[in-house]
Amino acid sequence: MTDPAPIVEFRPTPNQYAFTFGGAEPVLTVTPGTVLRVWSDDAFCSAIGPDDSHLAGRLDPARVNPQTGPFHVEGAERGDTVAIHLVTLEPARDYGVSAIVPHFGGLTSTTDAPTLQDPLPDLVWIYHLDPARQSMTYRARHSDHAVRLPVEPMLGTLAVAPAAGEVRSSLVPDRFGGNLDTPFLRAGTTCYLGVNVPGALFSLGDGHYRQGDAEACGTAVEGPMITTLIVDLLKGRAPATPRLETDDLLISVGSGRPLEDAWRIAQHDLAHWLTELLGLHPLDAYQLLSQIVRAPIANVVDPNHTITVAVAKALIPPLQPYDDIHIRLRRAADRLAKQPHPSQIHPRTNPMTDTRSSRTRRSR
Amino acid sequence: MTDPAPIVEFRPTPNQYAFTFGGAEPVLTVTPGTVLRVWSDDAFCSAIGPDDSHLAGRLDPARVNPQTGPFHVEGAERGDTVAIHLVTLEPARDYGVSAIVPHFGGLTSTTDAPTLQDPLPDLVWIYHLDPARQSMTYRARHSDHAVRLPVEPMLGTLAVAPAAGEVRSSLVPDRFGGNLDTPFLRAGTTCYLGVNVPGALFSLGDGHYRQGDAEACGTAVEGPMITTLIVDLLKGRAPATPRLETDDLLISVGSGRPLEDAWRIAQHDLAHWLTELLGLHPLDAYQLLSQIVRAPIANVVDPNHTITVAVAKALIPPLQPYDDIHIRLRRAADRLAKQPHPSQIHPRTNPMTDTRSSRTRRSR
Amino acid sequence: MTDPAPIVEFRPTPNQYAFTFGGAEPVLTVTPGTVLRVWSDDAFCSAIGPDDSHLAGRLDPARVNPQTGPFHVEGAERGDTVAIHLVTLEPARDYGVSAIVPHFGGLTSTTDAPTLQDPLPDLVWIYHLDPARQSMTYRARHSDHAVRLPVEPMLGTLAVAPAAGEVRSSLVPDRFGGNLDTPFLRAGTTCYLGVNVPGALFSLGDGHYRQGDAEACGTAVEGPMITTLIVDLLKGRAPATPRLETDDLLISVGSGRPLEDAWRIAQHDLAHWLTELLGLHPLDAYQLLSQIVRAPIANVVDPNHTITVAVAKALIPPLQPYDDIHIRLRRAADRLAKQPHPSQIHPRTNPMTDTRSSRTRRSR
Amino acid sequence: MTDPAPIVEFRPTPNQYAFTFGGAEPVLTVTPGTVLRVWSDDAFCSAIGPDDSHLAGRLDPARVNPQTGPFHVEGAERGDTVAIHLVTLEPARDYGVSAIVPHFGGLTSTTDAPTLQDPLPDLVWIYHLDPARQSMTYRARHSDHAVRLPVEPMLGTLAVAPAAGEVRSSLVPDRFGGNLDTPFLRAGTTCYLGVNVPGALFSLGDGHYRQGDAEACGTAVEGPMITTLIVDLLKGRAPATPRLETDDLLISVGSGRPLEDAWRIAQHDLAHWLTELLGLHPLDAYQLLSQIVRAPIANVVDPNHTITVAVAKALIPPLQPYDDIHIRLRRAADRLAKQPHPSQIHPRTNPMTDTRSSRTRRSR
Repeated sequence: MTDPAPIVEFRPTPNQYAFTFGGAEPVLTVTPGTVLRVWSDDAFCSAIGPDDSHLAGRLDPARVNPQTGPFHVEGAERGDTVAIHLVTLEPARDYGVSAIVPHFGGLTSTTDAPTLQDPLPDLVWIYHLDPARQSMTYRARHSDHAVRLPVEPMLGTLAVAPAAGEVRSSLVPDRFGGNLDTPFLRAGTTCYLGVNVPGALFSLGDGHYRQGDAEACGTAVEGPMITTLIVDLLKGRAPATPRLETDDLLISVGSGRPLEDAWRIAQHDLAHWLTELLGLHPLDAYQLLSQIVRAPIANVVDPNHTITVAVAKALIPPLQPYDDIHIRLRRAADRLAKQPHPSQIHPRTNPMTDTRSSRTRRSR
Repeated sequence: MTDPAPIVEFRPTPNQYAFTFGGAEPVLTVTPGTVLRVWSDDAFCSAIGPDDSHLAGRLDPARVNPQTGPFHVEGAERGDTVAIHLVTLEPARDYGVSAIVPHFGGLTSTTDAPTLQDPLPDLVWIYHLDPARQSMTYRARHSDHAVRLPVEPMLGTLAVAPAAGEVRSSLVPDRFGGNLDTPFLRAGTTCYLGVNVPGALFSLGDGHYRQGDAEACGTAVEGPMITTLIVDLLKGRAPATPRLETDDLLISVGSGRPLEDAWRIAQHDLAHWLTELLGLHPLDAYQLLSQIVRAPIANVVDPNHTITVAVAKALIPPLQPYDDIHIRLRRAADRLAKQPHPSQIHPRTNPMTDTRSSRTRRSR
Repeated sequence: MTDPAPIVEFRPTPNQYAFTFGGAEPVLTVTPGTVLRVWSDDAFCSAIGPDDSHLAGRLDPARVNPQTGPFHVEGAERGDTVAIHLVTLEPARDYGVSAIVPHFGGLTSTTDAPTLQDPLPDLVWIYHLDPARQSMTYRARHSDHAVRLPVEPMLGTLAVAPAAGEVRSSLVPDRFGGNLDTPFLRAGTTCYLGVNVPGALFSLGDGHYRQGDAEACGTAVEGPMITTLIVDLLKGRAPATPRLETDDLLISVGSGRPLEDAWRIAQHDLAHWLTELLGLHPLDAYQLLSQIVRAPIANVVDPNHTITVAVAKALIPPLQPYDDIHIRLRRAADRLAKQPHPSQIHPRTNPMTDTRSSRTRRSR
Repeated sequence: MTDPAPIVEFRPTPNQYAFTFGGAEPVLTVTPGTVLRVWSDDAFCSAIGPDDSHLAGRLDPARVNPQTGPFHVEGAERGDTVAIHLVTLEPARDYGVSAIVPHFGGLTSTTDAPTLQDPLPDLVWIYHLDPARQSMTYRARHSDHAVRLPVEPMLGTLAVAPAAGEVRSSLVPDRFGGNLDTPFLRAGTTCYLGVNVPGALFSLGDGHYRQGDAEACGTAVEGPMITTLIVDLLKGRAPATPRLETDDLLISVGSGRPLEDAWRIAQHDLAHWLTELLGLHPLDAYQLLSQIVRAPIANVVDPNHTITVAVAKALIPPLQPYDDIHIRLRRAADRLAKQPHPSQIHPRTNPMTDTRSSRTRRSR
């Protein structure tokens, strides 16, 4: 991946939305090194307008968390690793939506842990964006408090198709990535996912204009997103669970229930990642990480719960994760930043069409 | 609390160590506003020397996590709130100790979740401190890797006596504080604990020269600590779970099992704290916090697991937690900083005696 | 369903095995009321012979827990209920196999909750059956203890296709049934499953010659099984989670993690089932069940954990679950028992072919 | 213990009630072999009358789950085992009380796992006993359903003082026994508890006239109980967790959170118990138990959750747990049954006084 690649743009029509990881036909085939600029709808399929105050009557429960994709990565085989570098994330609407969904969320009983109590009420909060200031405004529903918050875009979902022939709802985070809901999935991050099926079949969606750790109420500030990413492929070396890399951090992501098990998956993976990279004994890595990691909860509301365990590169000896592919992708992203491209918040005025470049071909 | 208080110093003799929260006679009575400068032993009762490589034969399992205290706060009654402001934490030894304790820790089966597998080996890591550089050195046991890490002192334990007549092991974190093992218990933090018994009976210990989130292997870089703190008292207003305040953050601390429940306790408390401070409806607080909190794991290895949920003051409207007592204590701490006092790493040469000032009296 | 139906026999060839719930083409279409007599392979695809002592080198990890089916039930639509009455379960081999699978089971760390400890060893136990005495013999691997145990056949799995387009590994128990691993799935039980896709697409497998509660080591006494069942259909009334009925018991089955949540799903469902059947207020049902249910763990080793909550019909007022379909199916089963049919333990000598009766047709 | 011992009777006055395990002075000292006949109050300290419909205004939250005891067992030292054989349990009132306690129970959020939902209502159900028929009557609160249920008396709590100087609320089940809430604690059962402090300091209470598995709503049919028991002492051999023995079963009891960990404690202990008794290798015991145990939930509502894992003696080779002490105590109980003693339901007419026999002496 040496030349700046042409940018492949893709925006799905609503009937192209995928609501599962696995189980959907690819919308495009891309070669490793392709720059993709894709639009993704929000978790509610844009059913909630800027004046809405409730989900009921608007939201189609069969159409939540639509995914853009899947994309077939040419040459990707089971056991390989796809590296997806997030170049930019641009909110594609001038408001975000959050909501309390009855029987869903962190401070309520749920369908997975039912009680006999009444559910919390169905309530919507609209966050209007001020693009000039890169901010949004929270407005209380029961009083006149307003709070200005920074826009900090991230993706709730980034996934490959699952292993063992499984097809999972787009609400699920797991080994294949998915609905991880971690704020670390932001511009500047490279995500490593182990390939389970030919072509990897990666997809993304669930744009969040911002989110706190744990996604407490079950929804972030949800909105359509234009994501520019570079996809690359490493032969073999599939991680057991998603790994993230930023300029400053190495991160392992664990999903499971309860959170202790999610944490074990992440901490165990990070210890083994350090072991591979530094030649440390696993018990020495266990010890070192015990003193230096950060471990924020990603989500405590999805079918699996997710924890990220992060170590600062500054605290450990120099290392070259995945042969420095993050550094190379970062440089490619920097070159991209110098290329002009239309950046528009309103997808209505953004004619993102289902184009094909010379480096991609339509999948069957 | 207006005048700089005289500093009351206290260092327990080994037979004054408390190994429980509750159940021990107070070692001193202090008035609200007292500045305490206390020495606490490390979690191993200093049984591990700088040349030791294993715990077996050294560690007395009946003497772990010794507490300095308890201190009786004059006038504290059930339902009141003690505010403990940590002014400085000074490592009181030139090395820290960490270890894998068989059947204890995060990436192993434990006595609370036993399996039929062999335990991990008993292994000690010694971290030598370089006071001039405020750093310490990690050395691998199975290779010759060495890593220099910053000293970032914190207290593993800070507690009042439990409610309902309970006495808990000093290994336990819970509503009364205790073995929270959160890096937020560092200099500059004010800790609010609800009083359960007359005099509150607070104690502290388990100094860590640094610790990663979750205290993965079960032990931090353990060492004796000299803690300077100011203790104050607010009538009533006992929080349901420990609360922390720094210049920048409001933090609720939840302990329980599994981590989901610990998180619920913390998130629920922080939502209600915001509700009280801002007059927000609880559902509006739930929504706002969902988008702005940070939620790092404190520990996943103790009898309860602990999570901290933190909100940046910069992201919310101005508020006055506990009538700005943190600001007042912070100022008093600043004044203290200008007072000369001996700061010595080696307790052997630090004649901290069981002194009494005019503002304290020996408890019966 | 009034006449004794002709018996439709089916035995899959190995390349007809399904390893997922959902995602497989139906092998047969059956009308409601059909009696099926089907052979299912064991959880190891018969890879373990009577003289084997280890799994390694024998077991293909991509071929575990094969399912017989799926069967398309004519007329079944989403929201309907399939009622599957287990008439007889006949062990189809003269030995059963159990094993410790490294990183799988209840008293070990697992891939879902990894530690740094060594795994338990790969070990196989062979249980030889004595058909005349309906018994089998446990033989210790490390001493010469032998214990004769009754044969008590049950099915580990019984499922319909999942909802929301999901496809799940045949190792998973959930709302659609699946790898429940409950000893209540034995002859005489009627299982009610909510239909998610046209035709329901039910399948079964994972025969156990016996199993303790919780399936502690991860495997029961596994063996091929000949299952005779009657499948029936109720329009609408899909339960939220699998329900079982025997002559004596009503049972709700909950699957999730941790076990508390599995229990909540089951207990909540049973309370609502009583509410529907008796016209009880849900809080009155909650109270009554609190004093009378039995709640054995089904499994604590699968991707979800499963609990059964059972109430004795003798302890509650007379009721007619699903319009007494269990009673009708039971009578039909009794009539079947009077019909002669070959009952052979050895499938080699049992020419079960992929036959079609006039009441079934080959699916496309 | 050869002679039928004199029966020592004890009924505490309300100010003698203990509300903790540990932390209370013994009420009596008894020698091993003593037969005790003791009265215990119900979990509500008899605050709920037969015409009450709500707890509020009646129940003192500081006085729940009162214990009768503790009793000092002469000669009991740390590491020893007390064997307590339950001879008879007699309901000591003509009605039992159950209730939904807001923020407590299994199908509700709780103070340990709070949500923002409204609590369930405070509601009381009264069960009137019909001693002649050994039955009680459930009456719905929201309709006119009535159900006659058998009286099946059991003790919710049986405990020794905890280890490590801890004092625990009488609501807690743990290694020391306590609020196990298992229906196996009924007449005919011998309970083995490891001694942590000199004299063992055992206590009992929380009589249930019947209870379903898991104690779903948080309360059983609560009532005062007259318990006749024989206490005995074995030197050494303290089990790691409570063990129960009946004529038919060996049972290990695990308490923890989540239920998976409670199960691990119980299953691990039972495997090791079999290992000791039969000379089986632990992995062989693990295998055998996997196929034969029953594992009902005891409680899912207390500060720890409890599971019992039981193996039928009929399924395993003959063994002599604790040197057949259960058989000897059973015989002694049979001899007792032939002795006349007053059996009265109404404690008002039962002059149980704080008597001392020649075999006991008043503790200091």
